[in-house]
Amino acid sequence: MFVERFTAAAGPQPVDSVASESSVQYPVRRWGAIIAVDVVEYSRLTSQNEEQTYLQYKSHRRELIDPKIAEFGARFLKSTGDGVMAEFETALDAARCAVHVQRGMVERCQGEAAETQIVFRIGVSCGRILADPEDIYGHDVNVAARLQTLAPPGGIVMTEEVADRVRDGVDLPLEDLGLHYFKNMHRPVRVFQCRFAAERGEKVLADSVS
Amino acid sequence: MFVERFTAAAGPQPVDSVASESSVQYPVRRWGAIIAVDVVEYSRLTSQNEEQTYLQYKSHRRELIDPKIAEFGARFLKSTGDGVMAEFETALDAARCAVHVQRGMVERCQGEAAETQIVFRIGVSCGRILADPEDIYGHDVNVAARLQTLAPPGGIVMTEEVADRVRDGVDLPLEDLGLHYFKNMHRPVRVFQCRFAAERGEKVLADSVS
Repeated sequence: MFVERFTAAAGPQPVDSVASESSVQYPVRRWGAIIAVDVVEYSRLTSQNEEQTYLQYKSHRRELIDPKIAEFGARFLKSTGDGVMAEFETALDAARCAVHVQRGMVERCQGEAAETQIVFRIGVSCGRILADPEDIYGHDVNVAARLQTLAPPGGIVMTEEVADRVRDGVDLPLEDLGLHYFKNMHRPVRVFQCRFAAERGEKVLADSVS
Repeated sequence: MFVERFTAAAGPQPVDSVASESSVQYPVRRWGAIIAVDVVEYSRLTSQNEEQTYLQYKSHRRELIDPKIAEFGARFLKSTGDGVMAEFETALDAARCAVHVQRGMVERCQGEAAETQIVFRIGVSCGRILADPEDIYGHDVNVAARLQTLAPPGGIVMTEEVADRVRDGVDLPLEDLGLHYFKNMHRPVRVFQCRFAAERGEKVLADSVS
Protein backbone atom coordinates (compact mmCIF):
# COMPACT_ATOMS: atom_id res chain seq x y z
CA MET A 1 0.00 0.00 0.00
CA PHE A 2 2.67 2.42 1.06
CA VAL A 3 4.91 1.39 -1.80
CA GLU A 4 2.17 1.98 -4.32
CA ARG A 5 1.33 5.40 -2.96
CA PHE A 6 4.96 6.46 -3.23
CA THR A 7 5.37 4.94 -6.64
CA ALA A 8 2.28 6.74 -7.86
CA ALA A 9 3.69 10.04 -6.61
CA ALA A 10 6.88 9.62 -8.60
CA GLY A 11 6.25 12.63 -10.84
CA PRO A 12 7.96 12.67 -14.23
CA GLN A 13 8.78 9.11 -15.22
CA PRO A 14 11.92 7.95 -17.01
CA VAL A 15 11.51 7.61 -20.76
CA ASP A 16 11.31 3.83 -20.69
CA SER A 17 8.22 3.90 -18.48
CA VAL A 18 6.29 6.65 -20.26
CA ALA A 19 4.34 4.07 -22.26
CA SER A 20 1.18 2.59 -20.78
CA GLU A 21 1.70 0.48 -17.65
CA SER A 22 1.03 -2.81 -19.42
CA SER A 23 3.83 -2.26 -21.92
CA VAL A 24 6.51 -1.40 -19.31
CA GLN A 25 9.55 -3.64 -19.60
CA TYR A 26 11.11 -4.26 -16.19
CA PRO A 27 13.50 -3.34 -14.84
CA VAL A 28 12.98 0.40 -15.23
CA ARG A 29 16.35 2.22 -15.04
CA ARG A 30 16.49 5.58 -13.30
CA TRP A 31 18.76 7.81 -11.24
CA GLY A 32 17.85 7.99 -7.59
CA ALA A 33 19.12 8.61 -4.07
CA ILE A 34 18.58 5.97 -1.40
CA ILE A 35 18.42 6.03 2.38
CA ALA A 36 18.79 2.83 4.42
CA VAL A 37 17.50 3.32 7.98
CA ASP A 38 18.21 0.56 10.53
CA VAL A 39 17.68 0.04 14.25
CA VAL A 40 20.91 -0.28 16.27
CA GLU A 41 21.04 -3.69 18.04
CA TYR A 42 17.55 -4.62 16.91
CA SER A 43 18.12 -8.32 17.71
CA ARG A 44 19.03 -7.43 21.30
CA LEU A 45 15.94 -5.23 21.74
CA THR A 46 13.69 -7.90 20.21
CA SER A 47 15.22 -10.68 22.34
CA GLN A 48 14.59 -8.57 25.45
CA ASN A 49 10.98 -7.64 24.65
CA GLU A 50 9.54 -8.14 21.19
CA GLU A 51 6.16 -6.54 21.86
CA GLN A 52 7.61 -3.36 23.33
CA THR A 53 10.23 -3.11 20.60
CA TYR A 54 7.56 -3.50 17.92
CA LEU A 55 5.31 -0.82 19.45
CA GLN A 56 8.15 1.67 19.98
CA TYR A 57 9.53 1.10 16.48
CA LYS A 58 6.12 1.46 14.88
CA SER A 59 5.39 4.71 16.72
CA HIS A 60 8.68 6.18 15.42
CA ARG A 61 7.72 5.02 11.93
CA ARG A 62 4.18 6.37 12.08
CA GLU A 63 4.87 9.68 13.83
CA LEU A 64 8.29 10.63 12.45
CA ILE A 65 9.94 8.50 9.77
CA ASP A 66 7.09 7.82 7.33
CA PRO A 67 5.80 11.43 7.42
CA LYS A 68 9.35 12.74 6.79
CA ILE A 69 9.88 10.29 3.94
CA ALA A 70 6.60 11.49 2.40
CA GLU A 71 7.48 15.16 3.03
CA PHE A 72 10.71 14.81 1.05
CA GLY A 73 8.89 13.18 -1.85
CA ALA A 74 10.15 9.60 -1.79
CA ARG A 75 8.98 7.51 -4.73
CA PHE A 76 9.71 4.14 -3.15
CA LEU A 77 9.56 2.85 0.42
CA LYS A 78 9.93 -0.65 1.78
CA SER A 79 10.18 -2.24 5.18
CA THR A 80 13.39 -4.11 5.95
CA GLY A 81 12.03 -5.52 9.20
CA ASP A 82 14.11 -3.38 11.52
CA GLY A 83 13.98 -0.29 9.36
CA VAL A 84 13.21 1.06 5.92
CA MET A 85 14.78 1.70 2.57
CA ALA A 86 13.48 4.71 0.64
CA GLU A 87 14.33 6.26 -2.71
CA PHE A 88 14.22 9.98 -3.55
CA GLU A 89 14.56 12.04 -6.72
CA THR A 90 17.62 13.94 -5.46
CA ALA A 91 20.50 13.37 -3.05
CA LEU A 92 19.54 16.55 -1.19
CA ASP A 93 16.01 15.28 -0.49
CA ALA A 94 17.47 12.01 0.80
CA ALA A 95 20.09 13.68 3.00
CA ARG A 96 17.67 16.26 4.41
CA CYS A 97 15.16 13.54 5.19
CA ALA A 98 17.91 11.64 7.05
CA VAL A 99 18.89 14.73 9.06
CA HIS A 100 15.24 15.42 9.99
CA VAL A 101 14.77 11.82 11.11
CA GLN A 102 17.87 11.80 13.33
CA ARG A 103 17.07 15.21 14.85
CA GLY A 104 13.49 14.10 15.41
CA MET A 105 14.68 10.95 17.18
CA VAL A 106 16.81 13.00 19.60
CA GLU A 107 13.69 14.94 20.61
CA ARG A 108 11.45 11.89 20.80
CA CYS A 109 13.80 9.86 23.00
CA GLN A 110 14.84 12.46 25.56
CA GLY A 111 14.81 10.90 29.02
CA GLU A 112 14.32 7.32 27.76
CA ALA A 113 16.44 4.58 29.30
CA ALA A 114 19.38 3.76 27.01
CA GLU A 115 18.76 0.03 27.54
CA THR A 116 15.40 0.00 25.74
CA GLN A 117 15.77 3.08 23.50
CA ILE A 118 15.42 2.70 19.75
CA VAL A 119 18.23 4.45 17.88
CA PHE A 120 18.73 4.48 14.10
CA ARG A 121 21.75 4.42 11.81
CA ILE A 122 21.28 5.87 8.33
CA GLY A 123 23.26 5.34 5.13
CA VAL A 124 22.73 7.51 2.03
CA SER A 125 23.87 6.68 -1.50
CA CYS A 126 22.89 7.63 -5.03
CA GLY A 127 23.24 6.32 -8.53
CA ARG A 128 21.59 4.27 -11.23
CA ILE A 129 18.79 2.11 -9.95
CA LEU A 130 16.92 -0.83 -11.44
CA ALA A 131 13.29 -0.84 -10.32
CA ASP A 132 10.28 -3.09 -10.75
CA PRO A 133 6.90 -3.14 -9.03
CA GLU A 134 8.35 -5.13 -6.13
CA ASP A 135 11.69 -3.61 -5.20
CA ILE A 136 14.75 -1.57 -6.22
CA TYR A 137 18.08 -3.15 -7.16
CA GLY A 138 21.65 -2.37 -8.15
CA HIS A 139 25.11 -1.69 -6.78
CA ASP A 140 24.24 1.69 -5.29
CA VAL A 141 21.21 0.25 -3.50
CA ASN A 142 23.52 -2.35 -1.93
CA VAL A 143 25.95 0.42 -0.97
CA ALA A 144 23.26 2.28 1.04
CA ALA A 145 22.48 -0.89 3.00
CA ARG A 146 26.17 -1.51 3.75
CA LEU A 147 26.92 2.14 4.52
CA GLN A 148 24.43 2.38 7.37
CA THR A 149 26.47 -0.21 9.30
CA LEU A 150 29.31 2.36 9.43
CA ALA A 151 27.18 5.13 10.93
CA PRO A 152 27.43 5.80 14.66
CA PRO A 153 24.17 5.29 16.60
CA GLY A 154 21.97 8.28 15.75
CA GLY A 155 24.29 9.19 12.87
CA ILE A 156 24.32 9.49 9.10
CA VAL A 157 26.98 8.42 6.62
CA MET A 158 26.95 8.94 2.87
CA THR A 159 28.98 8.31 -0.26
CA GLU A 160 31.28 10.97 -1.67
CA GLU A 161 28.84 11.56 -4.54
CA VAL A 162 26.04 12.32 -2.10
CA ALA A 163 28.35 14.55 -0.02
CA ASP A 164 29.35 16.56 -3.10
CA ARG A 165 25.71 17.14 -3.99
CA VAL A 166 24.43 18.11 -0.53
CA ARG A 167 27.34 19.98 1.05
CA ASP A 168 25.75 23.40 0.51
CA GLY A 169 22.24 22.18 1.29
CA VAL A 170 22.51 20.70 4.78
CA ASP A 171 23.48 22.84 7.77
CA LEU A 172 25.96 20.31 9.15
CA PRO A 173 29.66 19.77 8.49
CA LEU A 174 30.54 16.62 6.56
CA GLU A 175 33.59 14.75 7.76
CA ASP A 176 35.65 12.60 5.38
CA LEU A 177 36.03 9.10 6.90
CA GLY A 178 38.19 7.88 4.03
CA LEU A 179 37.92 4.79 1.86
CA HIS A 180 36.03 1.73 3.05
CA TYR A 181 36.18 -1.72 1.54
CA PHE A 182 32.94 -3.69 1.79
CA LYS A 183 32.95 -7.46 1.46
CA ASN A 184 32.26 -8.65 -2.10
CA MET A 185 32.45 -5.13 -3.56
CA HIS A 186 35.31 -4.60 -5.98
CA ARG A 187 35.85 -0.88 -5.53
CA PRO A 188 36.23 0.94 -2.21
CA VAL A 189 33.68 3.61 -1.23
CA ARG A 190 34.74 7.02 0.14
CA VAL A 191 32.51 7.68 3.13
CA PHE A 192 31.44 11.00 4.67
CA GLN A 193 29.69 11.46 7.99
CA CYS A 194 27.35 14.23 9.14
CA ARG A 195 28.70 15.90 12.27
CA PHE A 196 25.84 16.33 14.76
CA ALA A 197 28.10 17.78 17.49
CA ALA A 198 25.55 20.29 18.81
CA GLU A 199 22.88 17.68 19.40
CA ARG A 200 24.74 14.51 20.24
CA GLY A 201 28.03 15.57 21.82
CA GLU A 202 31.53 14.39 20.98
CA LYS A 203 31.20 10.94 22.48
CA VAL A 204 29.03 9.52 19.74
CA LEU A 205 31.29 11.00 17.10
CA ALA A 206 34.36 9.46 18.71
CA ASP A 207 32.66 6.02 18.58
CA SER A 208 32.20 6.56 14.88
CA VAL A 209 33.40 3.79 12.62
CA SER A 210 34.21 0.89 14.92
CA MET B 1 0.51 -7.11 -4.65
CA PHE B 2 2.18 -10.43 -3.97
CA VAL B 3 2.08 -9.86 -0.24
CA GLU B 4 -1.63 -9.11 -0.35
CA ARG B 5 -2.41 -12.21 -2.34
CA PHE B 6 -0.59 -14.37 0.16
CA THR B 7 -2.11 -12.58 3.12
CA ALA B 8 -5.56 -13.04 1.66
CA ALA B 9 -4.93 -16.77 1.21
CA ALA B 10 -3.98 -17.22 4.85
CA GLY B 11 -6.94 -19.50 5.63
CA PRO B 12 -8.13 -19.68 9.23
CA GLN B 13 -7.13 -16.48 10.98
CA PRO B 14 -5.90 -16.18 14.56
CA VAL B 15 -8.60 -15.27 17.05
CA ASP B 16 -7.53 -11.66 17.40
CA SER B 17 -8.06 -10.99 13.69
CA VAL B 18 -11.42 -12.68 13.27
CA ALA B 19 -13.21 -9.37 13.79
CA SER B 20 -13.75 -7.09 10.82
CA GLU B 21 -10.56 -5.71 9.22
CA SER B 22 -11.12 -2.20 10.55
CA SER B 23 -11.18 -3.35 14.18
CA VAL B 24 -7.94 -5.38 14.01
CA GLN B 25 -5.40 -4.27 16.59
CA TYR B 26 -1.88 -4.67 15.29
CA PRO B 27 0.33 -6.50 15.81
CA VAL B 28 -1.50 -9.78 15.24
CA ARG B 29 0.25 -12.61 17.13
CA ARG B 30 0.43 -16.03 15.51
CA TRP B 31 2.56 -19.14 15.29
CA GLY B 32 4.40 -19.50 12.00
CA ALA B 33 7.42 -20.98 10.23
CA ILE B 34 9.74 -18.68 8.29
CA ILE B 35 12.18 -19.20 5.45
CA ALA B 36 14.85 -16.62 4.65
CA VAL B 37 16.26 -17.13 1.15
CA ASP B 38 19.36 -15.13 0.18
CA VAL B 39 21.71 -14.96 -2.81
CA VAL B 40 25.30 -16.00 -2.04
CA GLU B 41 27.71 -13.09 -2.79
CA TYR B 42 24.94 -10.92 -4.21
CA SER B 43 27.08 -7.77 -3.91
CA ARG B 44 29.82 -9.37 -5.99
CA LEU B 45 27.37 -10.48 -8.69
CA THR B 46 25.73 -7.03 -8.76
CA SER B 47 29.09 -5.23 -8.89
CA GLN B 48 30.07 -7.38 -11.85
CA ASN B 49 26.88 -6.99 -13.84
CA GLU B 50 23.75 -5.56 -12.27
CA GLU B 51 21.46 -6.05 -15.26
CA GLN B 52 22.36 -9.70 -15.76
CA THR B 53 22.15 -10.42 -12.04
CA TYR B 54 18.71 -8.82 -11.88
CA LEU B 55 17.39 -10.79 -14.85
CA GLN B 56 18.80 -14.13 -13.64
CA TYR B 57 17.52 -13.56 -10.10
CA LYS B 58 14.06 -12.58 -11.32
CA SER B 59 13.77 -15.62 -13.57
CA HIS B 60 14.56 -17.91 -10.59
CA ARG B 61 11.94 -16.05 -8.56
CA ARG B 62 9.27 -16.17 -11.26
CA GLU B 63 9.82 -19.71 -12.49
CA LEU B 64 10.82 -21.54 -9.31
CA ILE B 65 10.78 -19.74 -5.97
CA ASP B 66 7.49 -17.83 -6.05
CA PRO B 67 5.52 -20.79 -7.47
CA LYS B 68 6.99 -23.11 -4.79
CA ILE B 69 6.20 -20.59 -2.05
CA ALA B 70 2.62 -20.43 -3.32
CA GLU B 71 2.40 -24.23 -3.67
CA PHE B 72 3.32 -24.70 -0.01
CA GLY B 73 0.68 -22.19 1.09
CA ALA B 74 2.73 -19.27 2.37
CA ARG B 75 0.65 -16.53 3.98
CA PHE B 76 3.31 -13.82 3.78
CA LEU B 77 6.05 -13.07 1.26
CA LYS B 78 8.37 -10.10 1.02
CA SER B 79 11.37 -9.15 -1.05
CA THR B 80 14.61 -8.57 0.83
CA GLY B 81 16.39 -7.21 -2.25
CA ASP B 82 18.62 -10.23 -2.80
CA GLY B 83 16.05 -12.78 -1.74
CA VAL B 84 12.76 -13.33 0.02
CA MET B 85 11.33 -14.00 3.42
CA ALA B 86 8.17 -16.10 3.52
CA GLU B 87 5.95 -17.39 6.31
CA PHE B 88 4.10 -20.71 6.35
CA GLU B 89 1.50 -22.33 8.61
CA THR B 90 3.74 -25.27 9.51
CA ALA B 91 7.43 -26.03 9.80
CA LEU B 92 7.03 -28.93 7.38
CA ASP B 93 5.60 -26.68 4.65
CA ALA B 94 8.51 -24.27 5.15
CA ALA B 95 11.18 -26.99 5.10
CA ARG B 96 9.69 -28.81 2.12
CA CYS B 97 9.48 -25.54 0.19
CA ALA B 98 13.16 -24.91 0.98
CA VAL B 99 14.14 -28.39 -0.24
CA HIS B 100 12.14 -27.99 -3.47
CA VAL B 101 13.80 -24.61 -4.12
CA GLN B 102 17.33 -25.91 -3.60
CA ARG B 103 16.74 -29.05 -5.70
CA GLY B 104 15.12 -26.92 -8.38
CA MET B 105 18.14 -24.60 -8.45
CA VAL B 106 20.51 -27.52 -9.03
CA GLU B 107 18.50 -28.46 -12.13
CA ARG B 108 18.15 -24.89 -13.38
CA CYS B 109 21.84 -24.06 -13.10
CA GLN B 110 23.41 -27.17 -14.60
CA GLY B 111 26.25 -26.16 -16.88
CA GLU B 112 26.24 -22.48 -15.84
CA ALA B 113 29.58 -20.82 -15.14
CA ALA B 114 30.23 -20.72 -11.37
CA GLU B 115 31.41 -17.09 -11.67
CA THR B 116 27.99 -15.73 -12.64
CA GLN B 117 25.70 -18.40 -11.21
CA ILE B 118 23.07 -17.44 -8.68
CA VAL B 119 23.07 -19.75 -5.65
CA PHE B 120 20.84 -19.44 -2.60
CA ARG B 121 21.28 -20.07 1.10
CA ILE B 122 18.13 -20.80 3.10
CA GLY B 123 17.44 -20.52 6.84
CA VAL B 124 14.28 -21.97 8.42
CA SER B 125 12.92 -21.08 11.86
CA CYS B 126 9.56 -21.18 13.61
CA GLY B 127 7.85 -19.60 16.57
CA ARG B 128 5.61 -16.78 17.67
CA ILE B 129 5.35 -13.99 15.12
CA LEU B 130 4.07 -10.44 15.31
CA ALA B 131 2.44 -9.39 12.05
CA ASP B 132 0.90 -6.25 10.63
CA PRO B 133 -0.13 -5.32 7.09
CA GLU B 134 3.44 -4.31 6.27
CA ASP B 135 5.76 -6.97 7.66
CA ILE B 136 6.42 -9.75 10.19
CA TYR B 137 8.49 -9.25 13.33
CA GLY B 138 9.90 -11.00 16.37
CA HIS B 139 12.88 -12.95 17.64
CA ASP B 140 12.21 -16.05 15.52
CA VAL B 141 11.91 -13.93 12.36
CA ASN B 142 15.34 -12.48 13.14
CA VAL B 143 16.69 -16.00 13.72
CA ALA B 144 15.67 -17.11 10.20
CA ALA B 145 17.54 -14.16 8.68
CA ARG B 146 20.67 -14.90 10.71
CA LEU B 147 20.48 -18.66 10.17
CA GLN B 148 20.70 -18.46 6.40
CA THR B 149 24.20 -16.95 6.73
CA LEU B 150 25.32 -20.31 8.22
CA ALA B 151 24.02 -22.40 5.31
CA PRO B 152 26.50 -23.60 2.69
CA PRO B 153 25.83 -22.32 -0.86
CA GLY B 154 22.83 -24.27 -2.11
CA GLY B 155 22.11 -25.49 1.42
CA ILE B 156 19.47 -25.28 4.12
CA VAL B 157 19.90 -24.84 7.87
CA MET B 158 17.15 -24.80 10.49
CA THR B 159 16.58 -24.44 14.19
CA GLU B 160 16.26 -27.50 16.43
CA GLU B 161 12.53 -26.87 16.79
CA VAL B 162 12.08 -26.99 13.01
CA ALA B 163 14.29 -30.11 12.76
CA ASP B 164 12.19 -31.90 15.41
CA ARG B 165 8.99 -31.14 13.51
CA VAL B 166 10.18 -32.08 9.99
CA ARG B 167 12.55 -35.01 10.61
CA ASP B 168 9.99 -37.60 9.46
CA GLY B 169 8.62 -35.43 6.66
CA VAL B 170 11.65 -34.59 4.51
CA ASP B 171 13.61 -37.33 2.75
CA LEU B 172 17.00 -35.96 3.78
CA PRO B 173 19.15 -36.59 6.84
CA LEU B 174 19.49 -33.65 9.23
CA GLU B 175 22.92 -33.07 10.68
CA ASP B 176 23.38 -31.42 14.08
CA LEU B 177 25.80 -28.49 13.71
CA GLY B 178 25.70 -27.64 17.41
CA LEU B 179 25.06 -24.39 19.22
CA HIS B 180 25.62 -21.06 17.49
CA TYR B 181 25.82 -17.68 19.15
CA PHE B 182 24.51 -14.82 17.02
CA LYS B 183 25.53 -11.25 17.78
CA ASN B 184 23.06 -9.44 20.05
CA MET B 185 21.04 -12.60 20.74
CA HIS B 186 21.11 -13.71 24.37
CA ARG B 187 20.56 -17.42 23.90
CA PRO B 188 22.45 -19.69 21.51
CA VAL B 189 20.56 -21.47 18.71
CA ARG B 190 21.06 -25.19 18.00
CA VAL B 191 21.41 -25.47 14.24
CA PHE B 192 20.65 -28.44 11.96
CA GLN B 193 21.61 -28.76 8.31
CA CYS B 194 19.93 -30.72 5.52
CA ARG B 195 22.36 -33.17 3.96
CA PHE B 196 21.99 -32.99 0.17
CA ALA B 197 24.79 -35.51 -0.48
CA ALA B 198 23.12 -37.22 -3.43
CA GLU B 199 22.61 -34.01 -5.37
CA ARG B 200 25.49 -31.81 -4.36
CA GLY B 201 28.35 -34.14 -3.45
CA GLU B 202 30.52 -34.00 -0.37
CA LYS B 203 32.41 -30.85 -1.32
CA VAL B 204 29.61 -28.44 -0.59
CA LEU B 205 28.88 -30.17 2.69
CA ALA B 206 32.51 -29.96 3.75
CA ASP B 207 32.41 -26.18 3.12
CA SER B 208 29.49 -26.04 5.52
CA VAL B 209 29.69 -23.45 8.31
CA SER B 210 32.72 -21.36 7.51
